Amino acid sequence: MAHFRAVEALEKTTGLPVNIKYLIEGEEEIGSPHLEAFIHANKELLDCDFCLNIDANILGPDIPSIEYGLRGLAYFEIRFEGPPGDLHSGTFGGAVVNPANALAAVISQMHDDRGRVTLPGFYDDVIPLDDEERTHLAELPQTEEWWQQQSGAKVLGGEEGYTSTERATARPTLDVNGMLSGFTGEGSKTVLPSKAMAKVSCRLVPDQDPDQIHQSLKAFLEEKVPAGISWELDMHSGAVASITDRESKETKAAVDALEAVWNSPVRFQRQGGTVPVVGMMEQILGVKSLMLGFGLPDDNLHAPNEKFYLPNYYRGIDTFIRFMSALAA
Amino acid sequence: MAHFRAVEALEKTTGLPVNIKYLIEGEEEIGSPHLEAFIHANKELLDCDFCLNIDANILGPDIPSIEYGLRGLAYFEIRFEGPPGDLHSGTFGGAVVNPANALAAVISQMHDDRGRVTLPGFYDDVIPLDDEERTHLAELPQTEEWWQQQSGAKVLGGEEGYTSTERATARPTLDVNGMLSGFTGEGSKTVLPSKAMAKVSCRLVPDQDPDQIHQSLKAFLEEKVPAGISWELDMHSGAVASITDRESKETKAAVDALEAVWNSPVRFQRQGGTVPVVGMMEQILGVKSLMLGFGLPDDNLHAPNEKFYLPNYYRGIDTFIRFMSALAA
Repeated sequence: MAHFRAVEALEKTTGLPVNIKYLIEGEEEIGSPHLEAFIHANKELLDCDFCLNIDANILGPDIPSIEYGLRGLAYFEIRFEGPPGDLHSGTFGGAVVNPANALAAVISQMHDDRGRVTLPGFYDDVIPLDDEERTHLAELPQTEEWWQQQSGAKVLGGEEGYTSTERATARPTLDVNGMLSGFTGEGSKTVLPSKAMAKVSCRLVPDQDPDQIHQSLKAFLEEKVPAGISWELDMHSGAVASITDRESKETKAAVDALEAVWNSPVRFQRQGGTVPVVGMMEQILGVKSLMLGFGLPDDNLHAPNEKFYLPNYYRGIDTFIRFMSALAA
Repeated sequence: MAHFRAVEALEKTTGLPVNIKYLIEGEEEIGSPHLEAFIHANKELLDCDFCLNIDANILGPDIPSIEYGLRGLAYFEIRFEGPPGDLHSGTFGGAVVNPANALAAVISQMHDDRGRVTLPGFYDDVIPLDDEERTHLAELPQTEEWWQQQSGAKVLGGEEGYTSTERATARPTLDVNGMLSGFTGEGSKTVLPSKAMAKVSCRLVPDQDPDQIHQSLKAFLEEKVPAGISWELDMHSGAVASITDRESKETKAAVDALEAVWNSPVRFQRQGGTVPVVGMMEQILGVKSLMLGFGLPDDNLHAPNEKFYLPNYYRGIDTFIRFMSALAA
């Protein structure tokens, strides 16, 4: 197989053709709470020409591709409290403001009927998609049917006026990630809950600022939460979105390596997910990241039956070897 | 103490002055799913002149009172499903209809901005409160401050145009009792949930029919649930509301007994809770119920730190003895 031949070829040299520094972190899934301080404190140690980040996907098992854009993230927890303890819905129902109903009402106001997010100023810093990029995104193999197949959703939906590819990779969002209130066991309990909680997160695009979104959500809650409900808002994590240069020498080396291994033309895609370190490397070290990884959209990330497609594990090894050799040449 | 004297007096007779049949059920808190069939199957065994039901409250430790009205109940579970499995909110967020957001949006539409329930035909069978009854309810010691104190809620709220006493005891309601979706643990997980669930119940007043409310909620969901979401609706329990005669001989005997024990005038109140057996006894056996019990509004029913005020346990014994003696006289 190709990767064995490539490894063999590399072993015939005196070693790696480029210098490599590894930065391995285990907190990405919870928003990298300590990474930023670590990079700040170790600028010299981490100094480099560019960053190769392997936390990336390709479009399909046989479609080599490079992610040139990442969305950012702002993740929140909203807690409502009505009466100080759970009450009997018979004794008090109708006279007490129910925090679960109130939370549902507030969440429902976070989108308008065109699927747009209504937090004040939410779109102010969004760089609009220009016609050229929209044309390019429309040419990707991510058709509406593709999105249906990948997600399993029979009917898609989202912000009016955009394709699913744009909605999922190049437009900002607001989604409830979790919601909890009152009695959730089997059967019935006629409780009027004291508390209700929602985890809500926004995927962001350039140049939205997570801290601005935090302020915006705070202002939104100050306006919308009804009398009788006290509330708290926590921000669990924030990360800026990023766009990388499709014309850099590193990108070109990656294109050559991918095309040689897959024997197929490379596509450029935007990725809807968030990799906080990419923004940090750029802001703190002034270093651009190239996203080059081999996950697939149907890998069930963060969900049951997560997988990795093994043939691309080996193609990936081959690609990295060719990429490093090309960079050194 | 009074009850010892009364017991002593009773013991001097040849036995109980009236015949008693006990009906003890252990399923009231889950909506009495088997009781109706049992009563149907045992009409002869249960045949009686009237029913004394002790599942009742008084207005305060020193305010003897009789509940002449009970609200009914219709308790539902609503389940939404979007994509067939949990998805990564980065990969798919924006392009897939989120069942948690959709559930919040649907719940928020169950009330209008005047606090009225919007299920179609919800108020069609409601017997309006007449001026006489509203005047009577306004004279009860249940002031707005009383409701605040009993519930612990700093600010009260509910259907426009009604007092808290009316809202909590004599008007129909819709409350979320529980809500669950996605990730609800500590911290963050950027999941786009596959499912969202809410337990929703309505307290009903005469002459609302729980099965009609079920049909109404079904029609509401058929209209409101967005494309991309499949849904299921279960009815966990249903019970009709009831009103009893304040002028019957049993009620008069109860008034005399209460006033003798408490040495204070009896108040008539409506109770916001539901006791399904009351409707069953009337519908199946043609027997009216007198509600006579000694719980207090701050007993924390169905909630942590539930209690019973002991002095009224003894006053209650005394009251029942006097009541039975009066009935026999």
